[in-house]
Amino acid sequence: MIIVKVGGSEGIDYDAVCDDIAQLVSAGQRLILVHGGSSLTNEVSEALGHPPQFITSPSGYTSRLTDKRTLEIFQMVYCGQMNKGIVERLQMRGVNAIGLSGMDGRLWQGKRKKAIKAIENGRTRVIRDNYTGTVDEVNCGLLETLLDAGYVPVLTPPAISLEGEGINVDGDRASAATAAALKASDLLILSNIPGVLSNFPDESSLVRTINLSDIDDASENFAEGRMRIKLLGAKEAIEAGVQRVVIGDARGANPISRALAGEGTVIS
Amino acid sequence: MIIVKVGGSEGIDYDAVCDDIAQLVSAGQRLILVHGGSSLTNEVSEALGHPPQFITSPSGYTSRLTDKRTLEIFQMVYCGQMNKGIVERLQMRGVNAIGLSGMDGRLWQGKRKKAIKAIENGRTRVIRDNYTGTVDEVNCGLLETLLDAGYVPVLTPPAISLEGEGINVDGDRASAATAAALKASDLLILSNIPGVLSNFPDESSLVRTINLSDIDDASENFAEGRMRIKLLGAKEAIEAGVQRVVIGDARGANPISRALAGEGTVIS
Repeated sequence: MIIVKVGGSEGIDYDAVCDDIAQLVSAGQRLILVHGGSSLTNEVSEALGHPPQFITSPSGYTSRLTDKRTLEIFQMVYCGQMNKGIVERLQMRGVNAIGLSGMDGRLWQGKRKKAIKAIENGRTRVIRDNYTGTVDEVNCGLLETLLDAGYVPVLTPPAISLEGEGINVDGDRASAATAAALKASDLLILSNIPGVLSNFPDESSLVRTINLSDIDDASENFAEGRMRIKLLGAKEAIEAGVQRVVIGDARGANPISRALAGEGTVIS
Repeated sequence: MIIVKVGGSEGIDYDAVCDDIAQLVSAGQRLILVHGGSSLTNEVSEALGHPPQFITSPSGYTSRLTDKRTLEIFQMVYCGQMNKGIVERLQMRGVNAIGLSGMDGRLWQGKRKKAIKAIENGRTRVIRDNYTGTVDEVNCGLLETLLDAGYVPVLTPPAISLEGEGINVDGDRASAATAAALKASDLLILSNIPGVLSNFPDESSLVRTINLSDIDDASENFAEGRMRIKLLGAKEAIEAGVQRVVIGDARGANPISRALAGEGTVIS
């Protein structure tokens, strides 16, 4: 069983991703796809007159400020346009995909952070109208039922709070939680760079392997914003028993097969 | 087993619909909800600079002109904002809802009408960049698996073509096809009027019962645009073995229980 996370950044070729999935699935690979939609959410938010805002936590992680209206736009893009666009691409290739958000069937459940701290001009601000959280529990039964029946689940944030509200969760960490819960052999986190770069954005500075014990150092020493979250997800997955995490490139042909072959940053 | 269709028109109280579902489901009622999103799709289409266009077929039915961009906006609103908004409302009431479009798992499959005829200023025009169709096959296995596992399916157009493309289908007829395929006892089609009106829009002119053999006459004599499609769906459902169709009102408290009690236009 492999979990494939493909980001929502520019340059990612979803047709190539879906070609690759069709090949792998027809060869018998059990697979779940998790996708993002960040860049398109920014565009749609602008177009609908509710421009995106990002905040930085005291520990240095950047995330989307998710008020109720942002969550609604987020759902439109992630669960509507992106998710159904991918389901359609897969169905056109003969893959019987089912698109679900983390809210459906309480697939990804976690606590909503009702107040979060953000650093703004050097000062700490507390934000309350915020719908974000983390995935603490994965509905493995639902995923296994669908996989056993021959479907390919295509999963997307938001997740769901204990109270039943939609919450924006990080897609990389949600896929790590999914891989951990299902005891996947591999978690592939693909985006629009070749992997962890020791000298970002110089693509020739790809770090080929990182050991679990070195993740914190790598994160501190050379990972930029988004990559730090991917490394956090990788660490969580490996610690929970996933054999291998590959942070790879979703640009170009066969991005999943290439990551499975070890192209990118391999963490184990 | 009952199938409840709730339209996407103004004035519909989705909180009341979800309150009612929570009560019915906790009392053991097996239920599938199908929803619309037409009015919100119009708003979002305007806001995104791709205003909605409607066409009238030679036989007098009005429908949304669905080019590729319209389908994308349609998916954003129906599968994203509306579907997840309803799933959230149900989850907050303790109902384990799962939102699916007709594309997911090929839930609603049918032929895409690649060329459709429209009447414009008295002349017939052929439109080709169009993604619409009808539901010819329902994936009962998927729905039964979810129902047996205790989930409440929340279904929305689009459906999927034989080739795997998203196609806009009429929600009333899709719920009729679902009710027929699952041999539901009741199909409740709820919108923002009390039922079939013999003198539209005079709400005191409610027609309390229609027999199957009188549907065509009713449709011709006093049903306005949207109601003609509901009557067509009702006819298709009854002919396929559904015991009773109620066309009722989704405004106000307990709209489903009221329809089950026979409030609205009862067709059998």
